[in-house]
Amino acid sequence: QDKPQPWLPSLITETPQQGFELAVKLARKGVTSTQSNKEVLFRERDKYSNDAEHLMMASQVIALHYQTIAAANNYWR
Amino acid sequence: QDKPQPWLPSLITETPQQGFELAVKLARKGVTSTQSNKEVLFRERDKYSNDAEHLMMASQVIALHYQTIAAANNYWR
Amino acid sequence: QDKPQPWLPSLITETPQQGFELAVKLARKGVTSTQSNKEVLFRERDKYSNDAEHLMMASQVIALHYQTIAAANNYWR
Amino acid sequence: QDKPQPWLPSLITETPQQGFELAVKLARKGVTSTQSNKEVLFRERDKYSNDAEHLMMASQVIALHYQTIAAANNYWR
Amino acid sequence: QDKPQPWLPSLITETPQQGFELAVKLARKGVTSTQSNKEVLFRERDKYSNDAEHLMMASQVIALHYQTIAAANNYWR
Amino acid sequence: QDKPQPWLPSLITETPQQGFELAVKLARKGVTSTQSNKEVLFRERDKYSNDAEHLMMASQVIALHYQTIAAANNYWR
Repeated sequence: QDKPQPWLPSLITETPQQGFELAVKLARKGVTSTQSNKEVLFRERDKYSNDAEHLMMASQVIALHYQTIAAANNYWR
Repeated sequence: QDKPQPWLPSLITETPQQGFELAVKLARKGVTSTQSNKEVLFRERDKYSNDAEHLMMASQVIALHYQTIAAANNYWR
Repeated sequence: QDKPQPWLPSLITETPQQGFELAVKLARKGVTSTQSNKEVLFRERDKYSNDAEHLMMASQVIALHYQTIAAANNYWR
Repeated sequence: QDKPQPWLPSLITETPQQGFELAVKLARKGVTSTQSNKEVLFRERDKYSNDAEHLMMASQVIALHYQTIAAANNYWR
Repeated sequence: QDKPQPWLPSLITETPQQGFELAVKLARKGVTSTQSNKEVLFRERDKYSNDAEHLMMASQVIALHYQTIAAANNYWR
Repeated sequence: QDKPQPWLPSLITETPQQGFELAVKLARKGVTSTQSNKEVLFRERDKYSNDAEHLMMASQVIALHYQTIAAANNYWR
């Protein structure tokens, strides 16, 4: 198994809300897996979290991951 | 369970229209989960809600969430 | 039920073409649910309906909604 | 039925290639249903068909519609 | 049948890798079906293949087509 | 079979986390299959990995591939 504690053990969550929080985490992970340099991340995070277009793009990536997680949890039906 | 009242108890809605309203809510939540600072949100909301491209991006994120919610409700068939 | 006549009673349509028209309606609704001010909408509509990039973005949102509606109607098979 | 000859009688095509051609048609229809003014369409078409970013966006909308059509045809299996 | 040799006889491929190559082909076809003029294509290809944003958009269109092809091949399970 | 060792033998992974890593690999492959020139790739990688918008686009492509891989693995249920 992965030596360090796995950051994504499962896609299953108890509630739709926890599923949304996991989608936010995956969207962020998509950024940090492309750029791991903390300084760059902080500088860019400050930039994108203060700009409408980037906030919208973040919301879009979260929506894509939420599709995956909702399907994985059979829509918590 | 989450101490504060959960904002997303379920993906199930009675009608397609209520499903659309939930999709709008999720699209907004994607923005506020990235940026929680009220001032920034108001400033940016004023900007994006007055610009064609941003309005289109908002509509796109709503469309992605609507896919998820419609599938969760089996298309209200 | 919703007091005013519901604008989205169902995702079911008789034909693929009516399904496409419903997708166009949902794409527009995504814009007006973010910005309800008529003046802003007219000003921005004039802008985006005369610009290639915005016309393409509109077509993309329609395509996303058409996926949902086509699945809801089992592809009118 | 629709008085004028329907432009989208069905999503079913004989081959994957015809399915791709239908996706191109739907992507274009998404533009013309937002802007029906021929002059604007010609002017903008000239602009977007000569620009890498717009050509890429067109290809993206075609890809979304192709997903729908391929699923409708059960991937021509 | 189409007189010229069909360029897309089937979505079925032997391996996930061949499926990816077919997705690249479909993404390109989406561009050339919008703009068939060779000169424009070469000029724009030179532009987009040297620009991060365009390379990213190309990767996105490939990802959309790969979804379709992977589903068509039942994920090569 | 492909002479050189296939870079994509399968979509199946043991864990959701390995699935995410494969999605990152596919997103990158989408770029390198469009532009194989190493110098251009390094120059552009340096550019996009230091810019909020491009980092967001990369995360979006990863999210699309993750949808495919998660479905291929039946969400690791």
